[in-house]
Amino acid sequence: MSLDEKNWFTEIAEEAGTAFSLRVNECLHRERSDYQDIAVYQTTKFGRLLVIDGYVMLSDRDNFLYHEMLVHPALFTHAAPRRVAIVGGGDCGSLTEVLRHDDVVSAVQIEIDERVTRVAERWFPGLCTGAADPRAELLFDDGIEWMKRAPSGSLDVIIVDSTDPIGPAAGLFNAAFYTECRRVLATGGILVQQSESPLLHLDLIHDMRAAMAEAGYGALATLTFPQPVYPSGWWSATMARTGANLNGFRETAAERRKFKTRYYSAAVHHASLALPPFMQEALD
Amino acid sequence: MSLDEKNWFTEIAEEAGTAFSLRVNECLHRERSDYQDIAVYQTTKFGRLLVIDGYVMLSDRDNFLYHEMLVHPALFTHAAPRRVAIVGGGDCGSLTEVLRHDDVVSAVQIEIDERVTRVAERWFPGLCTGAADPRAELLFDDGIEWMKRAPSGSLDVIIVDSTDPIGPAAGLFNAAFYTECRRVLATGGILVQQSESPLLHLDLIHDMRAAMAEAGYGALATLTFPQPVYPSGWWSATMARTGANLNGFRETAAERRKFKTRYYSAAVHHASLALPPFMQEALD
Repeated sequence: MSLDEKNWFTEIAEEAGTAFSLRVNECLHRERSDYQDIAVYQTTKFGRLLVIDGYVMLSDRDNFLYHEMLVHPALFTHAAPRRVAIVGGGDCGSLTEVLRHDDVVSAVQIEIDERVTRVAERWFPGLCTGAADPRAELLFDDGIEWMKRAPSGSLDVIIVDSTDPIGPAAGLFNAAFYTECRRVLATGGILVQQSESPLLHLDLIHDMRAAMAEAGYGALATLTFPQPVYPSGWWSATMARTGANLNGFRETAAERRKFKTRYYSAAVHHASLALPPFMQEALD
Repeated sequence: MSLDEKNWFTEIAEEAGTAFSLRVNECLHRERSDYQDIAVYQTTKFGRLLVIDGYVMLSDRDNFLYHEMLVHPALFTHAAPRRVAIVGGGDCGSLTEVLRHDDVVSAVQIEIDERVTRVAERWFPGLCTGAADPRAELLFDDGIEWMKRAPSGSLDVIIVDSTDPIGPAAGLFNAAFYTECRRVLATGGILVQQSESPLLHLDLIHDMRAAMAEAGYGALATLTFPQPVYPSGWWSATMARTGANLNGFRETAAERRKFKTRYYSAAVHHASLALPPFMQEALD
């Protein structure tokens, strides 16, 4: 069966030999920014859909999975996450989740493409509620350059919420960047980064972890979660800390969190870290 | 972007507003059995693909997720799974996983469509190794009728490995069938059934659990796992037992299992049962 272009948005994952399509009613917005092509579609069942350079970024229906799992495991593992930076994340979804934590006193988002944020503010206002928080600071800058200028020991958590490791985000997946992040993290600080599909991109996860280890992070932990609109429907994030381990999960705080989550819980936090044997073998 | 029919197999999940496609080199086999249309494709990246009535059943690459998670949680939760029946499961993948357990003395597979098994034997020989085991019995019969004739208390585990609850499998998702299964299960027996997508079919999971409760199963547990070739890429199975709980996970036996698994482990067993808040709220 073939899908006509008028009624379906299709993303082909060529290296995986797969494609994922969402039925759409209309293209609500499309522009060419200085960096990339940005489009918003109205789907029939997944709410609105944000697409950059032909790659699905998020849908209304299922972005809670990604944003909750990129943010809360790291923030509930850090002993006192007060100063947080988000590299990328221009849709503000991660920023908004970060600011649900009362511990946070400042959250800076460094997105290279201001147009992503402006498009999100217009078409995904629910994701952007955090941007109005007085603790939030929105910068439109190159995250790699910003990190080079950031004072040593000035952050507790760095969240790398980027597109795939091709194009503008390629420089966010190597030891040089991770080394800079390590300098900027205070003692006990945590770096967390989206790390693609456990089924499709195990080599990438392996190489990311190797680069993190090379950059001096002694403790690494990859967690997985479902993400239907991404290739394979299964995604991961990898946490890294200078030091011997990533212990210190504030389980009671997670259980008693005052904000509502749809996917994340203390039990899901533990569960997400239980890697299947095929991943453990590939990553060890 | 549109996908040509020649190079892609596409399954549309109309009610979800999604479609999933696999790039294929050729259609290896196609027939119309007495019950359904059966096709096998050679994909470029997922090995061979089994399709029934246009719905993806399994691929070489990722069926381990489904088969391991349908079988091992139930068998390691039962105290001594000696007598097992599989309703459906004509591809023999579940049967083969069942027979990895030394405790099992008999495993009967009741598949309505013999052609599914014959096609699997030819094109997916790796799934069918269990069929040659002397403990295996392959019947080609209606699972609902077979269950009505089965002696009371004659089974320890019933695995319902069926297609979606439409067409031939519709009768496997209601209280009348579950009541018959309850009669056939011995004390402590477990029924486990594939229960569709947590994201897309939460109403169905709810209704299945309600029908199981109506049929007298006091203990229910739904577990989730990734399954990239199924709609949403996220799937579930639901276990049911007459009695107060589904405790009794033989964790040490699971940890010391003599057979190799790629997804299942004792830790993954626990993790799969940690339901996210949105599921718990919908199922409570």
